[in-house]
Amino acid sequence: MGNGQSKRIAVDMDEVLADTLTQFLSEYNREFGENITKADLVARKLVEIVPADRRARLRHYALSPGFFRDIPLMPGSRDVFSELRERYEVFIATAAMEFPSSFNEKYAWIKAHFPDFPDSHIVFCGDKSVIAAHFLIDDSPRHFARFAGQGFLFTAPHNRAENRYPRLNNWADVRRQFLNGE
Amino acid sequence: MGNGQSKRIAVDMDEVLADTLTQFLSEYNREFGENITKADLVARKLVEIVPADRRARLRHYALSPGFFRDIPLMPGSRDVFSELRERYEVFIATAAMEFPSSFNEKYAWIKAHFPDFPDSHIVFCGDKSVIAAHFLIDDSPRHFARFAGQGFLFTAPHNRAENRYPRLNNWADVRRQFLNGE
Repeated sequence: MGNGQSKRIAVDMDEVLADTLTQFLSEYNREFGENITKADLVARKLVEIVPADRRARLRHYALSPGFFRDIPLMPGSRDVFSELRERYEVFIATAAMEFPSSFNEKYAWIKAHFPDFPDSHIVFCGDKSVIAAHFLIDDSPRHFARFAGQGFLFTAPHNRAENRYPRLNNWADVRRQFLNGE
Repeated sequence: MGNGQSKRIAVDMDEVLADTLTQFLSEYNREFGENITKADLVARKLVEIVPADRRARLRHYALSPGFFRDIPLMPGSRDVFSELRERYEVFIATAAMEFPSSFNEKYAWIKAHFPDFPDSHIVFCGDKSVIAAHFLIDDSPRHFARFAGQGFLFTAPHNRAENRYPRLNNWADVRRQFLNGE
């Protein structure tokens, strides 16, 4: 794997590079006049705490034009992601098949935030066990079960109770883990 | 890799599952009143034999709405592809990043021709060395150089001169290679 010169890291998009939860909360709070924060979502997903009759709205947001294009960058990700690219072969691997309508916006998002990121290293997939990489940074532990490399769980409110994988709490942790001594 | 029960095959889309060249030839011949066939393209790509001032038209076809959605199935692929899925864990891996406008149509194409194919096993990528699979069936030898598994070159006119990889001339060959004795 790789060119023998650098190890390969696959980086997830939603909840790792992109602050997707903030985008969901912002839409939901605006529509229902609520003030749910990430602190309210420890070990739970947003869909689990909203009233049953509002759950369809979350899917509606994800299917609405502009939702994925306008997601803010995860705090601290820009610089560390760029540094990672100098030292490793970096792929962006996103489970885009959950929302096929998101393909174009996810691609536009990557081009907007990382204009020089090569198309060749963008992967839209479903089951990330298909990714050949030494490391995978992801907020969804389900992707690690069959992944052949080492998974690193990027902390998100929903995964706080997960303890089977090494954890990176934020992008400063990514720097410490992968760029220590640089 | 995999669940320990079945080996994993990644199958390319354009020129393997989908008869993309026929779609290009059909558009080109219609516009210019020509009659170029696959036999005219041995060891050459269409873009290499058309007059320089018409080359942009090929890219135009690929960017036109409907082009990727309407590509015919590669002859013989439907049944063998279904049989492969019974015996192996099969992913469809397509280099969609060359034409980002093709994302939605490629997805629709897969759903139209293989309605029960799981989203989890569709991969839109660029450099296929990122695919973790035992086997990759592809018409583009460039994907094999860094692929960790065994590449099988699916014959297309443009790759007739390639001799570095085991070759599958058609879907009957795929059946013989992977389903022999079934």
